[in-house]
Amino acid sequence: MVLTQSGSLQLLLDLIGVFVFALSGGLVAVRKRLDILGVVILSGMAGLGGGVLRDLLIGQTPPVGVSDWRLMGVCVLAGLCAFTLHPEMSRIARLVRLLDAAGLALFCVAGSIKALAYGAGATTAIFVGVLTAIGGGLMRDVIVGQVPEVLRRELYVVPALLGSSLVVIAHETPYYTVPVLWGCVFVAFALRMIAVVLDLNAPQPLRTGDRS
Amino acid sequence: MVLTQSGSLQLLLDLIGVFVFALSGGLVAVRKRLDILGVVILSGMAGLGGGVLRDLLIGQTPPVGVSDWRLMGVCVLAGLCAFTLHPEMSRIARLVRLLDAAGLALFCVAGSIKALAYGAGATTAIFVGVLTAIGGGLMRDVIVGQVPEVLRRELYVVPALLGSSLVVIAHETPYYTVPVLWGCVFVAFALRMIAVVLDLNAPQPLRTGDRS
Amino acid sequence: MVLTQSGSLQLLLDLIGVFVFALSGGLVAVRKRLDILGVVILSGMAGLGGGVLRDLLIGQTPPVGVSDWRLMGVCVLAGLCAFTLHPEMSRIARLVRLLDAAGLALFCVAGSIKALAYGAGATTAIFVGVLTAIGGGLMRDVIVGQVPEVLRRELYVVPALLGSSLVVIAHETPYYTVPVLWGCVFVAFALRMIAVVLDLNAPQPLRTGDRS
Repeated sequence: MVLTQSGSLQLLLDLIGVFVFALSGGLVAVRKRLDILGVVILSGMAGLGGGVLRDLLIGQTPPVGVSDWRLMGVCVLAGLCAFTLHPEMSRIARLVRLLDAAGLALFCVAGSIKALAYGAGATTAIFVGVLTAIGGGLMRDVIVGQVPEVLRRELYVVPALLGSSLVVIAHETPYYTVPVLWGCVFVAFALRMIAVVLDLNAPQPLRTGDRS
Repeated sequence: MVLTQSGSLQLLLDLIGVFVFALSGGLVAVRKRLDILGVVILSGMAGLGGGVLRDLLIGQTPPVGVSDWRLMGVCVLAGLCAFTLHPEMSRIARLVRLLDAAGLALFCVAGSIKALAYGAGATTAIFVGVLTAIGGGLMRDVIVGQVPEVLRRELYVVPALLGSSLVVIAHETPYYTVPVLWGCVFVAFALRMIAVVLDLNAPQPLRTGDRS
Repeated sequence: MVLTQSGSLQLLLDLIGVFVFALSGGLVAVRKRLDILGVVILSGMAGLGGGVLRDLLIGQTPPVGVSDWRLMGVCVLAGLCAFTLHPEMSRIARLVRLLDAAGLALFCVAGSIKALAYGAGATTAIFVGVLTAIGGGLMRDVIVGQVPEVLRRELYVVPALLGSSLVVIAHETPYYTVPVLWGCVFVAFALRMIAVVLDLNAPQPLRTGDRS
């Protein structure tokens, strides 16, 4: 609540998060040779999927992702950007990763805050926060039939888990304030960026059972 | 409401829509060599998926797709038809496309009407209507691991978007009446058939980023 | 209710069911070369997916799968087992199948009981029970991009359908008691084991339409 609805700065960051995830969906769609409508739809699923999942899990219907036209407008815009600018996109891959980390950090914190505001307990709030952050990327990849990147990439879930957990811990203390919540966003963002820069990966299973 | 619950003609058309989408699911399942139960289940997902998604989004639980045995019975019937008659199906492909267009038109309109009846705003009503129309096909394709046809086929989403938008516009005027709603169905149906007949496709991205 | 919340034996069996399904998710993830976090997440989806779907369909939010930390803890444990022990797993495949059959039987019955407790009609209760039993496996396979095994394996849906139907029939009689419900679990379990042992499969479509 505090973070997602209390001001125009928050709205701006919400829109940035949706935009960045939507852009990632649009780029995947372009690579899969979808037509322009497919690109826009996949942008929408990647950008809004996490939030829709969150709202279904906490029982807020209709989900904000299907009721706020600004969020959808941003997805359409991101889809059109991916469709028209995709040859340039590779040049700004670094920027996209930066923004993607920002989206991840913001969504896990905002998801947990919203779940707590709806009366969820600690476990639910953490789980819902993480799903908010990874849900859009999951849907994007499942729909085009590839194993979700969030299950394979360098530490992606851990920063979200950390951000959501810090929010829930803060909620149990007198320090559940806007600056502290921004701190949670920052910690998740920083951890994600460190993982990207150092190319940190979670360990993989030993190579023996490869009969896929 | 008006359209989906006010009479036996409406019920008949609802059942036709579900049957046609279920048939498409059954045929995909046959092509994927699923057994008879897999065929019936995929029929059910294709036929009922859009409506279940709609009801989850607007907060109507349990969704009508899992509570009305007639809708499920129709899906089982469609699955059995696909299973037993599939060699003949190729001959009636033209009929199936016609019925599919009818299903698309009916579902987008019925979805938006139901969302409005549950107090949804304009954006939600349009989005929910489109998802009702394309949701079953999306689930069908995602479950068997192919990129959803609705994201690739000649103009498929646009007729649904148009039908749902017309419903929402009508809702703002004094002309939110049964005949006008049938007009919305007709417009969506006509646009879809024009796209099929003329083989109209939405533009694709330029071929440069093919590194899938 | 009776079955899932009335005692520590029931809780134990609930946890076993979740553990077994989670283990199956973890093993699939290991085969797909996901990292340790991907393995744990896929374990969680396979173990909790059916219950989350059930709770969304009957309108209980947040779903117990995202609010009970014990269920999640069991999934994490199963994921770590799959990750570390997978070379031994092939030796205990027989045990896993046995437990999987137990999970299937328990989940279809528990799902239908919960749906009835939430006021669902007969059709809904059967459907929700079956989805509870097969939902986790469906999600597991869809996420890693393979055609769901539950749509292809030897009779998998039929035992669930039978178990759920027996629960609903019992609910209409004075014999809706704990021992009878355990009987339903046993019947579903027995039918599933017979299908496994005899390698019974549902019939497949004739091989003519293989143009996938």
